[in-house]
Amino acid sequence: MYAGLVLFLSFWSFAEGGKLLVLPQDGSHWLSIMRPVVERLRQKGHEIVVVAPEINLRIGLSVHYTIKTYSVPYTREYVEAEFKKMGYRSFTPQPFLEKFSKLANITTMFFDSCKRLLSNKELIKYLEESKFDAVFMDPFFPCGQIVAEHLSLPSVYLVRGLPCSLDFHATLCPNPPSYIPRFFTRYTDRMTFLQRVGNLIASLSSSLACSFLYSPYDGLIKEFLQQEATVLELFSHTSIWLMKYDFVFEYPRPLMPNMVLIGGISCTQEKALSQVLWRYTGEAPPNLPKNVKLVKWLPQNDLLAHPKTRAFITHGGSHGVYEGICNAVPMVLMPLFGDQMDNAKRVESRGAGLTLNILEMTSKDISTALKAVINDKKYKENIKRLSDLHLDRPIHPLDLAVHWVEFVMRHKGAPHLRPAAHDLNWIQYHSLDVIAFLLAVVLLSLFISLKCCLFSVLQSLGKILV
Amino acid sequence: MYAGLVLFLSFWSFAEGGKLLVLPQDGSHWLSIMRPVVERLRQKGHEIVVVAPEINLRIGLSVHYTIKTYSVPYTREYVEAEFKKMGYRSFTPQPFLEKFSKLANITTMFFDSCKRLLSNKELIKYLEESKFDAVFMDPFFPCGQIVAEHLSLPSVYLVRGLPCSLDFHATLCPNPPSYIPRFFTRYTDRMTFLQRVGNLIASLSSSLACSFLYSPYDGLIKEFLQQEATVLELFSHTSIWLMKYDFVFEYPRPLMPNMVLIGGISCTQEKALSQVLWRYTGEAPPNLPKNVKLVKWLPQNDLLAHPKTRAFITHGGSHGVYEGICNAVPMVLMPLFGDQMDNAKRVESRGAGLTLNILEMTSKDISTALKAVINDKKYKENIKRLSDLHLDRPIHPLDLAVHWVEFVMRHKGAPHLRPAAHDLNWIQYHSLDVIAFLLAVVLLSLFISLKCCLFSVLQSLGKILV
Repeated sequence: MYAGLVLFLSFWSFAEGGKLLVLPQDGSHWLSIMRPVVERLRQKGHEIVVVAPEINLRIGLSVHYTIKTYSVPYTREYVEAEFKKMGYRSFTPQPFLEKFSKLANITTMFFDSCKRLLSNKELIKYLEESKFDAVFMDPFFPCGQIVAEHLSLPSVYLVRGLPCSLDFHATLCPNPPSYIPRFFTRYTDRMTFLQRVGNLIASLSSSLACSFLYSPYDGLIKEFLQQEATVLELFSHTSIWLMKYDFVFEYPRPLMPNMVLIGGISCTQEKALSQVLWRYTGEAPPNLPKNVKLVKWLPQNDLLAHPKTRAFITHGGSHGVYEGICNAVPMVLMPLFGDQMDNAKRVESRGAGLTLNILEMTSKDISTALKAVINDKKYKENIKRLSDLHLDRPIHPLDLAVHWVEFVMRHKGAPHLRPAAHDLNWIQYHSLDVIAFLLAVVLLSLFISLKCCLFSVLQSLGKILV
Repeated sequence: MYAGLVLFLSFWSFAEGGKLLVLPQDGSHWLSIMRPVVERLRQKGHEIVVVAPEINLRIGLSVHYTIKTYSVPYTREYVEAEFKKMGYRSFTPQPFLEKFSKLANITTMFFDSCKRLLSNKELIKYLEESKFDAVFMDPFFPCGQIVAEHLSLPSVYLVRGLPCSLDFHATLCPNPPSYIPRFFTRYTDRMTFLQRVGNLIASLSSSLACSFLYSPYDGLIKEFLQQEATVLELFSHTSIWLMKYDFVFEYPRPLMPNMVLIGGISCTQEKALSQVLWRYTGEAPPNLPKNVKLVKWLPQNDLLAHPKTRAFITHGGSHGVYEGICNAVPMVLMPLFGDQMDNAKRVESRGAGLTLNILEMTSKDISTALKAVINDKKYKENIKRLSDLHLDRPIHPLDLAVHWVEFVMRHKGAPHLRPAAHDLNWIQYHSLDVIAFLLAVVLLSLFISLKCCLFSVLQSLGKILV
C-alpha cells in the first residue's frame, strides 16, 4: 500500500524545475508567508522571478530569486511616511469615513504602481519572452492578475482575506451574513438579531465601498488587456486560493474546492531562547526594571516558544495571533487597524485572551489584563486546546502551499476545481427564474381551473334558469 | 523547518493505542473503503471492535478487529435474495415509484436490524462498559449514530453520498440546485432551463421521500435515547464526514470544514498482471474466443493497471469508476441501479467513456462503443488527464482518512469545525427576519415621511384658505 503512495508522491517531481513569476505585496504579507513559500519552491529546483516596485520596504535581493523592478512615481520617504501615518492614526480616534479615505491613499499608491508596471514596455517584453508556468501573487495588489491574463498564465493567490469579501464573491463561495461576521464589524459567529441586521447592512454597503476602491482598475484593464472586465471578474479566473485560514482562529464557514487552507504556515518550533526581552527602538527609560531587556528585533516565534513565556502582548495582526496559537501563549490584544479588531475579537471569543482599547486603556488596565491571562488558568487551558487542535494536521501548511503552486505549474491551472456556477448569472444562480416559472405555472393552473369551474357553474345555472 | 514538521507529526502518535467502535454497512461500502481504513488503524495500534448483524454478506472474522454480532429477524437466504432481486430488477424496466418501494424493502431490513441491535441488552451493556474513544460508521445504516449518542461518543462518517442530499442538509452545506445536479436526475453541472426546473423539483420532492424513508427512526430515537429528534438532527452531530469525493469525478461545489475528501482511497498501484481475463461464474459458452479467459474473481485494480488494458466495461459503481480513473482506462459504462446512472453521466460528460442502456443495447452497440473508446484517441487523452489530476495530491486519501479518525479519537470530536449556523432556524439562517425588519423600517419611514408631507401641505393649504 505504501509503495503505491510513495510512487504517487514522487511521480510528480519535476524532471527539470519549472519557472514561476511572483508578484508580491510589500510588507508583512511578503515577509511572513509568501517568502517562505518562494524559498521552498526555489529549494525544489524552480526558477523564480519576483517583480516588485523599485521603491519597496521589504522585498530585497536574495539568492532565492531574480528580482525585476520597475520605477514608480513616489519616493521611499513617501511610502515610509504613509505607513507611519497609518500607524500613528491608529492612536487617534477617527470617524470611519476618514479612516476609509486614508485607506484610499494606499490604494492609490498601488494603482499608480500598477500603471507604471503595465506601461513598462521593457519589463513586459521580458515577461512575455520568459515562458513562465504560472503566476504566484498576493491579490491585495490586484495588478498581478492583469499581468497573468496578459501572459495567459494560470495564477495562485496567497491571501488572508480581501476587502468586502471579494475573495468569496470571486470564488462564488456561499457567505451567509446570518452567521459569518463581516470584517470591521467585530461580531462573532453568534450574533444577536440587531448584530445580524448590522452584519447584513455591512455586507451590502461594503460592496459599494469596493466598487469605489477597485473601479479605477476597469480603465486599466480595458487599456492593457483590450477587454471590458472588472477586478472581480479577473479574480474569478485564478486557479487556487491559498488562504491563511484555520478554524481554531476563524469561524467555521463554507469553502470552495479551489480554496486551500494554510493558516499557521509560519508555525515551526525552532531554537529555544533563555531570556526575557522587550523590543524597543527609542531611548531606554531610566526606571526600567532589571527583568525587562530592550532589543531592536527578536525572533518572536522563538520567544513565544520559550516555556517560561506566560503571556503575549500583541497588536493582533494575524501572523502574531497564529504564532501565539502555535506556541499556546495566552494573549493581551491591543488592536490598531485593519483586521486586528476582528482578530482580537476572535481570540477573546475563544477565551484565549483579553482585548484592550489602545485609545482608552490605563496602565492599571494592562496590569489587570496581564494578571488575568497569567493567573486565571482558563486562558492557558483554552489556548492550549486551540494549539493542540491547530498543530494536529495531516500535512504542514507550508508543504501544502508548495504542493498547490507546483500543481498549478504542472497542470497549467486547476480547471477541474472551477464550479459551473461561474457560467450562471445572479438570477439563474439563485434559481429565481425557475421559481418564477413554477409560480407562474401554479397560478396559471389555478386560474384555468377556476375559470373552468366558474364556466361550468354558470352553464349549470343557465340550464336551470332556462 | 523540516525539524518542526517532523516534530508536529510525531507529537500526536498515541502513547498507547485508542479504542474504536466501528458500525459498518454491509457490502461493497465495507469491503472497498471502510475495511482498509480499519486495517490501517489496527496497524497503528488501536483496538477495534466491529458491531455487525449476525446475518451479513461481507463482514467476516479478521485478525484486525474483534467482531460483536447481534441476532436479526431475517435469514441469510432472505438477504441474498433481496440483493439478487435488486440486481435482476435492474434488467427490467420499472416505473420510478415501484423501484422506490423496492428500495424501501432494504430500508426496512436495516430498520429491523437496528431495532434488534438497540434491544440487545447484553451487547449494549458491553458497549457501555468498553470506554471507546469514538465511533466510526457508515451513515447509510443510520443506527450507528443512535448508538454513538447513547454512548456520548463523537463519530466519524464514511460516505459516498446519502439519499436526498441528507449529508449536505445535516452539515448545513450550501447546495444550490442551479448547478449541483441531484442524484437520479442524470444531469450534469451545466443544465438547461428545463433541467434546472427538474433539478429544483427533484430537490424538493426528495425531501418528502426522505421523511418517508427515515421517519420510522423517530420512534426508535424517542424510545432508546428518550429524546425527540430526527435522523437528520442526529446526523448533524457528527464530527467528521469522510467523503468519497474527488473533483475529477464529482462536479465542483461548496464544502464545509468538517468534510474531508478521500475519493480514490483504494487507488494503489500494485502487482502487475500479464493476462487478459473475464470474470464469469456460469457455464462457459462453447464459442468462447481464445483471447477471453473466464475467472471467478480477479483483482480489478491490478488488471486495470496492466499497460495493455485498453478499455474498462463497468456497471459504473463509484469504486470501479475511481479504479478506472486511477489507472487511466477509458470506460464503457452499463449502469444498473442507484447512483450508477449519475456516475456514468459524470464520466461521459468528461469525455472519458461512453454509456450504454443495458435494457436496450445490442451486441453491435457494445462493439461500436468499445471500438470508439479504444480507437478514438480523445477518450484515452481525457481519462489520462483526469488520472494525472487525481493522482497529484499532497497526501494519500487513506492516510487522510486515518488521520481524521485519529483526530476525533484524540480530541473527543472536532467542535471547532462546527458552524454556528446549527444554532439558527431556517428563517434566521436565510436572514429572512432581518430582511423583513429592514423592509418594515423602510416602509414605515416612507409612510411617516408621506404623512408628514401630507400634514404640512394640508396645514399650508388651511392657512392659505383661512
